[in-house]
Amino acid sequence: MADLVPVMTIAELSDFFVQAFPVGDHDRLGRIDRIEPGFVRLALEPETSNLRPGGIVSGPTQMGLVDRAAYAVILAHIGPVAMAVTSNLNFSFLRGVQLRTFHADARLLKLGKRLATVDVVLWQDDEANIVAQSTVTYAIPGNS
Amino acid sequence: MADLVPVMTIAELSDFFVQAFPVGDHDRLGRIDRIEPGFVRLALEPETSNLRPGGIVSGPTQMGLVDRAAYAVILAHIGPVAMAVTSNLNFSFLRGVQLRTFHADARLLKLGKRLATVDVVLWQDDEANIVAQSTVTYAIPGNS
Amino acid sequence: MADLVPVMTIAELSDFFVQAFPVGDHDRLGRIDRIEPGFVRLALEPETSNLRPGGIVSGPTQMGLVDRAAYAVILAHIGPVAMAVTSNLNFSFLRGVQLRTFHADARLLKLGKRLATVDVVLWQDDEANIVAQSTVTYAIPGNS
Amino acid sequence: MADLVPVMTIAELSDFFVQAFPVGDHDRLGRIDRIEPGFVRLALEPETSNLRPGGIVSGPTQMGLVDRAAYAVILAHIGPVAMAVTSNLNFSFLRGVQLRTFHADARLLKLGKRLATVDVVLWQDDEANIVAQSTVTYAIPGNS
Repeated sequence: MADLVPVMTIAELSDFFVQAFPVGDHDRLGRIDRIEPGFVRLALEPETSNLRPGGIVSGPTQMGLVDRAAYAVILAHIGPVAMAVTSNLNFSFLRGVQLRTFHADARLLKLGKRLATVDVVLWQDDEANIVAQSTVTYAIPGNS
Repeated sequence: MADLVPVMTIAELSDFFVQAFPVGDHDRLGRIDRIEPGFVRLALEPETSNLRPGGIVSGPTQMGLVDRAAYAVILAHIGPVAMAVTSNLNFSFLRGVQLRTFHADARLLKLGKRLATVDVVLWQDDEANIVAQSTVTYAIPGNS
Repeated sequence: MADLVPVMTIAELSDFFVQAFPVGDHDRLGRIDRIEPGFVRLALEPETSNLRPGGIVSGPTQMGLVDRAAYAVILAHIGPVAMAVTSNLNFSFLRGVQLRTFHADARLLKLGKRLATVDVVLWQDDEANIVAQSTVTYAIPGNS
Repeated sequence: MADLVPVMTIAELSDFFVQAFPVGDHDRLGRIDRIEPGFVRLALEPETSNLRPGGIVSGPTQMGLVDRAAYAVILAHIGPVAMAVTSNLNFSFLRGVQLRTFHADARLLKLGKRLATVDVVLWQDDEANIVAQSTVTYAIPGNS
């Protein structure tokens, strides 16, 4: 995947996100921290309103960030295509996510004409402290 | 799984949900419509704030309902155990979900001492119009 | 999915399978028992050479039957297209599979132009005794 | 996961594999090439009997190697426990696997008392040429 070249900047992708995601999710969109060939890093500051009993960040909050990270790394390489849609998402919850910033590292495993597959790792405090892993497949329209 | 017997009523489970889920998700908890042996049905009225471009209900909104439906069918059969946690969730998006009520039918595939696996189907308008399928595994604490 | 109509018979599909699958798998192809709209049922008699310690049928033997059942229900409805390829397979092992016939019930969740998604349930002795559940997505060529 | 320490050698693990896997799979067990903290690498030389039409290595052959690689990295760190069983396996097929050696790199994402989750990447020719990705969860007995 060494021949991948990002075509959007952090600013462009951030602007696009505000339009592409539901208003009700705007407080959980996350911040785009890094765009590199085949890679995007997001960060999210969870709010107390996202906590489950025990003070753990809820699963849907985590899955939402993963879905956005996968979308981000695809768009960063093909340009803004609002209608790319998630086809499959597999999510493994590994460790409790605490009430502080956590990160999503999304890596393109394949960027095909019709399908893109992304590996997303959520981590907190340290890159080695992986709290969740997800594999996401997006269907890319307009290439059919 | 014919020997499964629910131990919670719709009212009890609904009350428990309000405590168990984050405040920020209370507007998307869904309504518990039916509890039967091995089965729970939820319904959710999506809001315009949950829409993506094209007027489609967002993926995280769908995944949140699936996660709650799986949790509901497990709790309905083992009683309120707030700390049961999702271990794995696999989600296939099949058709766009429109801005009107959609339903989650959760069926217990296995209710073990340590792991429970649930098949969840999302449908809209008609039971035959399946918009998403998900398989969810929960780890059950206190039995280790 | 009520408008699905099978276009292949059990005999035609069985013949096609012998050509489409590797020789090394011919002893584990399974028998096609039933083709109905949106549905195919396979059966496999496991051999002692497929057992793991404890006398349990191995995971790859189970996954192979699931993959073939998904392929079968798709081909039964679109005709013989050898190059349809599995895109994603998610498999939940629920109960040990014993050394006697077990069955795969494959149901089409979606048959799109480019992707088909299939729910496959493995059972043994009785339809209610589900030993595994799988969701399989196939990419369909020639429609791009 | 930096505190992981392998407790089995390649020779010990290879010997154990021959006993733990079905005789019918012995020609597709793969060779254990490397054991490191949190990591195991396997290699498999596919045979023509494992090919599908088009000369592509079959999905079950790939899934079998992934399952064994996940098992190997767990056993390498907890010692020989034949009855550890796969709980969930998610597999994304990315590129056709050709008739020559391919490799499985298995990394422990979590090694808990009851569940272990492993990321497995299949590659061919070059580590950057990823042909499949899989996430595998094993249930570990005897710790309940």
